[in-house]
Amino acid sequence: MTQRIAVPLPKAYLLLNHGPTVLVSSAHGGRRNVMAAAWSMALDFDPPKVAVVIDKTTLTRELVDASGEFVLSVPSRRQAAMTLAVGTKSGREIDKFAGLGAGGAAASVVGAPLIEDCLAWLECRVIAEPHIQQTYDLFLAEVVAAWADPAAFSEGRWHFPDAQQRSIHYLAGGSFFTTGDEFQV
Amino acid sequence: MTQRIAVPLPKAYLLLNHGPTVLVSSAHGGRRNVMAAAWSMALDFDPPKVAVVIDKTTLTRELVDASGEFVLSVPSRRQAAMTLAVGTKSGREIDKFAGLGAGGAAASVVGAPLIEDCLAWLECRVIAEPHIQQTYDLFLAEVVAAWADPAAFSEGRWHFPDAQQRSIHYLAGGSFFTTGDEFQV
Repeated sequence: MTQRIAVPLPKAYLLLNHGPTVLVSSAHGGRRNVMAAAWSMALDFDPPKVAVVIDKTTLTRELVDASGEFVLSVPSRRQAAMTLAVGTKSGREIDKFAGLGAGGAAASVVGAPLIEDCLAWLECRVIAEPHIQQTYDLFLAEVVAAWADPAAFSEGRWHFPDAQQRSIHYLAGGSFFTTGDEFQV
Repeated sequence: MTQRIAVPLPKAYLLLNHGPTVLVSSAHGGRRNVMAAAWSMALDFDPPKVAVVIDKTTLTRELVDASGEFVLSVPSRRQAAMTLAVGTKSGREIDKFAGLGAGGAAASVVGAPLIEDCLAWLECRVIAEPHIQQTYDLFLAEVVAAWADPAAFSEGRWHFPDAQQRSIHYLAGGSFFTTGDEFQV
């Protein structure tokens, strides 16, 4: 497992502010799963909240509905093939952890696993909003713990030490953008 | 005004899928405004929907609440200073169109303006969800028309012809990432 340091909760929004594609992991009753999501965003600073779309047809949805929890992990370019694979295959058909190289480590507050070797992690507890969950597949959640690989993020700043350690942004058809260079206005 | 071509509605999600920072423009009763938003995402494919956070304290919020419409424009790196400025100053204090170089052009369906020289535009009609608007400042909307500068996006693909014509991803404190290189898994 990558080294990880706690990210202060009021800084957690910075892990998502640039719009990376994330992995959504979940667990309930001895089952666990992971899927990819391009449709997630920060929703508030402090206490930090997030929004993410989780389709009704997915096993992730079943586990999130049952547990009221999930983890968002921010994968690196090195993990792009795994990200595409867990976003394409269903957890009803294969064990994505065993079959797709998505290692899971214990989180600190929630039961869902942190996906190993990612750049950052947000442990999330669902805010019950049944109408929008049902109508739009939209989940709002409070971030109850946040972590980062200090080589990638520390002191409120992303570092991206090398090209393979950058976050990624999914497009379609197996295409991604990497996060590009930082500049100051 | 930059040249623009219609983006078929089922492809509109591609304009936001990689998580760029957007400009939110609005108009009502002879007033108009524009602000920046890092917290937006696609919410559905077809009909396309989006989600965006619009703080209660903003003039944009007042105009969106009154009109039920807004436009999301995707700014380029060339427009980063303007993006930061319209995200920092309040439309209650200055006319951002006159003062900050944010030119507005007429949209096709909604009354809110398209921000000139951007890479792409989504004309949006708010889906009334008063509870989440009030509680989380979260707006859901249907995309009723979409446009792109064909030099930047056409046939369902981003091109990013040069470094200044890439989309941008806001972090904090005046720092942005540009959208990086595309790669295929």
